[in-house]
Amino acid sequence: MPLGPVSLAVLAEHTGATLAGDPATLIHRVGTLREARRGDIAFLANPRYRRDLSNSAASAVIVAPDAAGLVTGDKLVHPNPYACFARIAQLLDPHPAPAPGVHPAAYVAPTARLGHGVSVGAHAVIGDDAVVGDGSVVHPHATILARVRIGARAIVHAQAVIGSDGFGFALDAGHWIKIPQTGTVVVGDDVEIGAGTTIDRGAIEDTVIGDGVKLDNQIQVGHNVRIGAHTAMAGCVGIAGSAVIGRHCTVGGGAVILGHLVIADHVNISAGAMVTKSISAPGTYGGAYPLAPQREWLRSAAHVRALDDMAERLAALERRLRELERRE
Amino acid sequence: MPLGPVSLAVLAEHTGATLAGDPATLIHRVGTLREARRGDIAFLANPRYRRDLSNSAASAVIVAPDAAGLVTGDKLVHPNPYACFARIAQLLDPHPAPAPGVHPAAYVAPTARLGHGVSVGAHAVIGDDAVVGDGSVVHPHATILARVRIGARAIVHAQAVIGSDGFGFALDAGHWIKIPQTGTVVVGDDVEIGAGTTIDRGAIEDTVIGDGVKLDNQIQVGHNVRIGAHTAMAGCVGIAGSAVIGRHCTVGGGAVILGHLVIADHVNISAGAMVTKSISAPGTYGGAYPLAPQREWLRSAAHVRALDDMAERLAALERRLRELERRE
Amino acid sequence: MPLGPVSLAVLAEHTGATLAGDPATLIHRVGTLREARRGDIAFLANPRYRRDLSNSAASAVIVAPDAAGLVTGDKLVHPNPYACFARIAQLLDPHPAPAPGVHPAAYVAPTARLGHGVSVGAHAVIGDDAVVGDGSVVHPHATILARVRIGARAIVHAQAVIGSDGFGFALDAGHWIKIPQTGTVVVGDDVEIGAGTTIDRGAIEDTVIGDGVKLDNQIQVGHNVRIGAHTAMAGCVGIAGSAVIGRHCTVGGGAVILGHLVIADHVNISAGAMVTKSISAPGTYGGAYPLAPQREWLRSAAHVRALDDMAERLAALERRLRELERRE
Repeated sequence: MPLGPVSLAVLAEHTGATLAGDPATLIHRVGTLREARRGDIAFLANPRYRRDLSNSAASAVIVAPDAAGLVTGDKLVHPNPYACFARIAQLLDPHPAPAPGVHPAAYVAPTARLGHGVSVGAHAVIGDDAVVGDGSVVHPHATILARVRIGARAIVHAQAVIGSDGFGFALDAGHWIKIPQTGTVVVGDDVEIGAGTTIDRGAIEDTVIGDGVKLDNQIQVGHNVRIGAHTAMAGCVGIAGSAVIGRHCTVGGGAVILGHLVIADHVNISAGAMVTKSISAPGTYGGAYPLAPQREWLRSAAHVRALDDMAERLAALERRLRELERRE
Repeated sequence: MPLGPVSLAVLAEHTGATLAGDPATLIHRVGTLREARRGDIAFLANPRYRRDLSNSAASAVIVAPDAAGLVTGDKLVHPNPYACFARIAQLLDPHPAPAPGVHPAAYVAPTARLGHGVSVGAHAVIGDDAVVGDGSVVHPHATILARVRIGARAIVHAQAVIGSDGFGFALDAGHWIKIPQTGTVVVGDDVEIGAGTTIDRGAIEDTVIGDGVKLDNQIQVGHNVRIGAHTAMAGCVGIAGSAVIGRHCTVGGGAVILGHLVIADHVNISAGAMVTKSISAPGTYGGAYPLAPQREWLRSAAHVRALDDMAERLAALERRLRELERRE
Repeated sequence: MPLGPVSLAVLAEHTGATLAGDPATLIHRVGTLREARRGDIAFLANPRYRRDLSNSAASAVIVAPDAAGLVTGDKLVHPNPYACFARIAQLLDPHPAPAPGVHPAAYVAPTARLGHGVSVGAHAVIGDDAVVGDGSVVHPHATILARVRIGARAIVHAQAVIGSDGFGFALDAGHWIKIPQTGTVVVGDDVEIGAGTTIDRGAIEDTVIGDGVKLDNQIQVGHNVRIGAHTAMAGCVGIAGSAVIGRHCTVGGGAVILGHLVIADHVNISAGAMVTKSISAPGTYGGAYPLAPQREWLRSAAHVRALDDMAERLAALERRLRELERRE
């Protein structure tokens, strides 16, 4: 149920922001500085966008204390303008979460257990003995397989699969013998799982997704992976089996993390990077081939292939030059 | 309804090609030069494949004017043989598009609006207030979520998701606060969306897919992305939020385009490339690490890691050599 | 139906292993050396993990002949401990394969043909004239489209799509004309297809997946690809159209194989590699940009961009040094 317009005074109280301007100003929607119309509240999180301020039609702006002077009209002053904006956006959301209940076209196994206020969308599937915690939303076409346990307030998007078999085979004379995947997936509270993301069940132990983890679309999480609380990953990330990712990490789109690695807390992996070794120190790590016009790339790739030769020639030059210098 | 065989004369008229040979030759199917049987029509688009001509059992060949002399049998001469072939393949398609209508095992929300002649496959889902234009085909298991608008003659393949939430969170003391995704996805006419492809709804404004765009399988399109008309992307491409892709672009498989970038019209991105900066000039761009036997790769990767050192040593050599040369 | 505990003697006979210790020891479950409880059987495949032996609570250990001396308790000695473990894990699997039969919430086209003992999960779709061989398991939400043929004992996981249209278009004056995809997908016996994996139907001929192939999650297989028997691929691999992959190959996660390439038998491609040329010799191949702290990466990427210049400077130094040396 959309709330209707809310006064700036109410928003200030709701978010703990300091109001400067007319407390009676009515806010209908959130907007961006550039596209805002009258009745919108926008935010300025980065002074780089101050140019957008003067032309903005926003009725109010959320701004940090040290940039508050830039905003001449009605404003909410908050130390974290973007988080303040997020809370207001939730309050004013014109399309709130789907109503609790199981859609008649969904399939929920008789032995599955759904918490209070769970919403299950059309054609979603929840398997035998699966558990979904209070207040969770399972979107249409999501698949939660047998024995998977999901905490409270989860959001599982369309076409996500939780609890598919891990990829485990033993090689026997050139043929692959399947190793039954008898673990499951345990998902904490306040987790969001994107569209088309797949999380495999563990081989023997469980795959574990910590509280507050946010996974974007089309992420692949192998069996027995552990993702620490409050870690967020962008789309198309691939995590091989038994990798252990720390808490409060971020992983950029398309990155790949190999199996059995251990990534410390507070590590940020850049988009497209391939992580081949464990990372024990917090910080930002990256690695991806630089883009170039196609011809330049082909030439640079040829040089990369020849780097061994280049290194030897460089060492030879150093030896020969040292020899010459000695003779001088 | 398969058409049955068609005479070469009819095909020439249908495509605007110039017929050379027997107008009564009956064509049953399309084929490749190599695998064609009697009754097939094949095409020669690249003179490199002229060797396949002599051994081909094709009953007729489509060929460009400047290569027409290579074909001694019945032929259709057309400036764009492959396009001519495509139109004939459509005409002779033995498995034409599914019949209009909603499959009894699909779910279409009562408030969704379907145009004339729309086909909705088994277990597809079309959400509240979504719109699907005339003549579109929604394959089994496709998910079109609330308020998404799709133009005419779209083809949405199995397991595609259109309108999932964009990935938007504000960080507040180490926890992620969800930013409601209140925009939607607007898809133009004549768009094809591959199996397992996901297109997120916009955060505030909409995500926009232009007319004639063709997206292969397992592509991820972030919120507020705009893809210009007649752009085509191969499988597994990832496009981060708010990127703006031009018209008539192509993107190779597995490429990643970072958020907020602007790509000009007529840009071609090679497979596996990672685009980290906006591209303002048309042309072909690439970048991917060259493949090598594993040992060579490991050695070359070690050199890449040491390039900073190599560059310094090179500069030192230049200084020392200049010094020596001066003394001569 | 879980079997209940089994004696070590029975396991030895079942696997052909040599028993050393008490034949009456009862085994309830498989486990890892580290996490095993009493009643578990674990394995030691790599002497590197011998440290885990002494602290393990496992009731028995599977070990290779040359490491048998390391295990002091009950053991099964087998030349391939991991394969022996796999067979025992299958025997003791507490969650065996779903019962044969079509779930009432699945859709199977009236013209589809299912072999004996096939299991079709909730909301799975099997299209017109598709064929699924004896003993296959089609998990919930899997999509097997029209005319696809799948062999015996296949496992198709949730959200997999087999038989979606290949990505085939002809460019005509800036617009893409669809080329009907009239082939299908032919899948051999004993194939496993991961969650969210998509396999496109062929354009004219078929896409072919050989016997015993194992595909992990979110793999994309383009039209007319051929994958040889007993090849295994990890998650997120992308294979472009008409590539031909040999038998007994392995492909690491996130690797990309371009179209029309031919890969020999017994080739191993490392994770994240991009294969741009055919590979004719067996062996291991790789190529991915090395990860580094973000600043180092940016510096190394700048050097990679400048490699052409570096190569020229190196050659110039060599010329000048040769000149100086001649004068000495």
